[in-house]
Amino acid sequence: MITRTLAELAAEVGGEMVGDGSRVIRGVAGIREAQPGEITFLANARYEAHMAETRASAVICGRGTASCAIPMIQVDNPYLAFQRAVRVFRPDLYRPEPGIHPSAVVAPGAVLGHEVAIGAHSVVEAGAVLGDRAVLMAGCYVGARAIVGDGTFLYPHVTVREECVIGRGCILHSGVVIGGDGFGYAFDAGRYHKVPQVGNVVIGDDVEVGANTTIDRATTGSTRVGEGTKIDNLVQIGHNVVIGRHCIIVAQVGIAGRTELEDFVTLGGQAGVGGHIRLGTHATVGGQSGVTKSIPPHSTWTGYPAVPHIKFKRLQAFFQRLPQLFQRTKALEQRVEQLESQSSRQEVR
Amino acid sequence: MITRTLAELAAEVGGEMVGDGSRVIRGVAGIREAQPGEITFLANARYEAHMAETRASAVICGRGTASCAIPMIQVDNPYLAFQRAVRVFRPDLYRPEPGIHPSAVVAPGAVLGHEVAIGAHSVVEAGAVLGDRAVLMAGCYVGARAIVGDGTFLYPHVTVREECVIGRGCILHSGVVIGGDGFGYAFDAGRYHKVPQVGNVVIGDDVEVGANTTIDRATTGSTRVGEGTKIDNLVQIGHNVVIGRHCIIVAQVGIAGRTELEDFVTLGGQAGVGGHIRLGTHATVGGQSGVTKSIPPHSTWTGYPAVPHIKFKRLQAFFQRLPQLFQRTKALEQRVEQLESQSSRQEVR
Amino acid sequence: MITRTLAELAAEVGGEMVGDGSRVIRGVAGIREAQPGEITFLANARYEAHMAETRASAVICGRGTASCAIPMIQVDNPYLAFQRAVRVFRPDLYRPEPGIHPSAVVAPGAVLGHEVAIGAHSVVEAGAVLGDRAVLMAGCYVGARAIVGDGTFLYPHVTVREECVIGRGCILHSGVVIGGDGFGYAFDAGRYHKVPQVGNVVIGDDVEVGANTTIDRATTGSTRVGEGTKIDNLVQIGHNVVIGRHCIIVAQVGIAGRTELEDFVTLGGQAGVGGHIRLGTHATVGGQSGVTKSIPPHSTWTGYPAVPHIKFKRLQAFFQRLPQLFQRTKALEQRVEQLESQSSRQEVR
Repeated sequence: MITRTLAELAAEVGGEMVGDGSRVIRGVAGIREAQPGEITFLANARYEAHMAETRASAVICGRGTASCAIPMIQVDNPYLAFQRAVRVFRPDLYRPEPGIHPSAVVAPGAVLGHEVAIGAHSVVEAGAVLGDRAVLMAGCYVGARAIVGDGTFLYPHVTVREECVIGRGCILHSGVVIGGDGFGYAFDAGRYHKVPQVGNVVIGDDVEVGANTTIDRATTGSTRVGEGTKIDNLVQIGHNVVIGRHCIIVAQVGIAGRTELEDFVTLGGQAGVGGHIRLGTHATVGGQSGVTKSIPPHSTWTGYPAVPHIKFKRLQAFFQRLPQLFQRTKALEQRVEQLESQSSRQEVR
Repeated sequence: MITRTLAELAAEVGGEMVGDGSRVIRGVAGIREAQPGEITFLANARYEAHMAETRASAVICGRGTASCAIPMIQVDNPYLAFQRAVRVFRPDLYRPEPGIHPSAVVAPGAVLGHEVAIGAHSVVEAGAVLGDRAVLMAGCYVGARAIVGDGTFLYPHVTVREECVIGRGCILHSGVVIGGDGFGYAFDAGRYHKVPQVGNVVIGDDVEVGANTTIDRATTGSTRVGEGTKIDNLVQIGHNVVIGRHCIIVAQVGIAGRTELEDFVTLGGQAGVGGHIRLGTHATVGGQSGVTKSIPPHSTWTGYPAVPHIKFKRLQAFFQRLPQLFQRTKALEQRVEQLESQSSRQEVR
Repeated sequence: MITRTLAELAAEVGGEMVGDGSRVIRGVAGIREAQPGEITFLANARYEAHMAETRASAVICGRGTASCAIPMIQVDNPYLAFQRAVRVFRPDLYRPEPGIHPSAVVAPGAVLGHEVAIGAHSVVEAGAVLGDRAVLMAGCYVGARAIVGDGTFLYPHVTVREECVIGRGCILHSGVVIGGDGFGYAFDAGRYHKVPQVGNVVIGDDVEVGANTTIDRATTGSTRVGEGTKIDNLVQIGHNVVIGRHCIIVAQVGIAGRTELEDFVTLGGQAGVGGHIRLGTHATVGGQSGVTKSIPPHSTWTGYPAVPHIKFKRLQAFFQRLPQLFQRTKALEQRVEQLESQSSRQEVR
């Protein structure tokens, strides 16, 4: 078991020790689950109320947090320090030994880097290239002439179709499908005719793709995902979409064909983005929102159809007061009727 | 072929025979598809209109249903009786014979119960435990130290990642991914750093999980699904979510990280539930609704953002009348202008 | 490399040459990616602005397009002509050679047509039938007594459960699950009891199903998808749904149990359609809309809950002006108060 004194841990995560630094810590846990001997963290004000009853032996928290019953490691970014602490206590995440399982089927023309690991029942087609230390767990498929970069990790049951390119240090979770055909048909003579999808998908370095997410190949050219972008589960990315670097795309988002995201865009869960538009750098879209036109950089949009978030909140506030508005209008009508009858009496006089 | 007289069937499903109980029945079918010799059921008033033209030889219906042209089995819960009748005529649902297919890869350190069935090309990693009569159909993956309970059935292409726990009598449909990494990153120095997801998923007994649904492992601790809960296809359940017992989660729902559902919660299709909140026991959320804050027990919420359903319906009714409200306001403005001009004339007098 | 003169290409796609027909073309590409030697196309007015800077050597466009710097092939349906041009330059889409990979597991009782291709680690159960030239790529599963029609193509990791029927010339993308159990339970004595799903799925000819889409088997009878219908990725189709011919169902749509779509229905991305209703022929539903009741033929519906699109746009326009309406009402209240005080003064006089 890996252990650290609090003082050691404070040094490793780059924080300042407040309280007894000699306590021995053996793990990290959430504020409500933590047991004695574990350190917890406080990154979200919502959980401050739980500080009083936590059983943790210490807490990682922001600078300037009021002192509490247990020792603190104060840091600039509690969630980052938590991430570092997890890595201290769990440096040994599961990684299969290099080697090719005898049941795997690797075509003669495939090119394998040093120390690749290919799990049971995986298939690597002719012309495919696996970089050094690439991992294919059980039941993965890498198509003809596809490229998987150095150190990239495919969990069980990933599909990378022919000619697609995955960067270095990526993680593709189970059930991911990279390079399925884009959804394109020409209508003629009463039926839809498939447009062959002859492009590919190109994914940059350090990208993570969540379970059962699908990224379609381009009609011609490439569908692209930029370096460092993180994609959650069950996301749909259409043909010829171009996603910049360091974007965050939460679960069940859908992005229609040919839309472009600049760098650092964030899309909330279940949001839908229409085709052929552009989302500026650092744009943010709220969960379940429906984006139908381009969004300028550094703006937050929400709603269906999406509008600037500040406008959305204002419209929602008025919407909630709609019943009162109807009442006020009815009252006005009665008062005006009263005035009109008085007025007509006065006209008569 | 299995057959029953109506009288026999009435006894087996716990109903009361109305009409000729000697007819011989050989199967169950929907009201519009049923053929002579089959029994149908009436559990939804929407289908009463089809009773006149059904070709079925009999019908299962609620107590007190008005008599009709064909014999009836009257019961308290027609859908439950239908379920029992299906089991009478189809007791032999497909279940593979116990045994390990020669192409399956079972690590030496795995522990297998009695009469397990492991299909072609399935993989069971070291330290995994399969309970008695557990079934892995073709192409399943059970990771290191994972546990699959007695009698649990995995359809083809299921992934259970390392250290996850599945209860007894569960059904996991094709493409399900249990224990993919939670979606957590700490932002620092211009990029996102992955927070290792070192927890697991724990699923109770008698849980069903629909095709291609994903349930993420916890960051630390466990993501939990309680006994008897039923989850439909393409659902996303985030890290550290805790779902109670006997919940119903319809297709394409998304539940964000660390949210808790108490027992008997129902979520309609495509609903989204934000992170870090709590849905009380017997709470119901309408389809496509977006829940952004905690919901009290025994309440129904709808809309985006979700509000109590009665309020949603009221707001919608007013919303539909918005055009008339604009007209009424315009009319009021004209009438007030008229009054003002009269009034100024009178002031002048 | 395949090449054509523009004049030859114009003849092949059925268009009229405008400009120099002797240029040699070697490929097709999007308007912004095209290089010299490639032809592009203009099917969406949104991209006209890019015509000035395209590097393409020619363009496929509608009849009557104003002349431009590069030669044109003018056609009635530019997207259809584009589709034909792609097929000219890429006639050789990847198709595995007929034959059964030694690692595939084909049950003795399966029936295989001429020239079928069965990839590595695929499984075909007893009683299954694969038509002539059917293709199963790696890791597919075809269940007992299922039927896959002539020339139908299954990409890696497709699941077709027992007794389901797939037509001729279909394409099923990776991760598709056909025939998972419908979501049906009878509630009794404090818990949900599974209704056995003993029906199947029947898919017509020339249907395409996108990656990770799920189509549930019927409770009894059949869930049906008509000839020529195209379904995108991550779509959910419930038990006993009946979809007509030549429908378009965009990504992440959900259709609840027992709903019927007539022919030529179009559902936008992420739309949800409730159960037990009917969408008339040529009905269109906007993206993210929620359909809760039947829709007449040849109509377009949008919103949540969905209303006729023209009504949706009108309501949205009024909704956007809600802040002004509140202001107008407040102004009216002040003016009426003013009139009332004048009136009471006059009454006093």
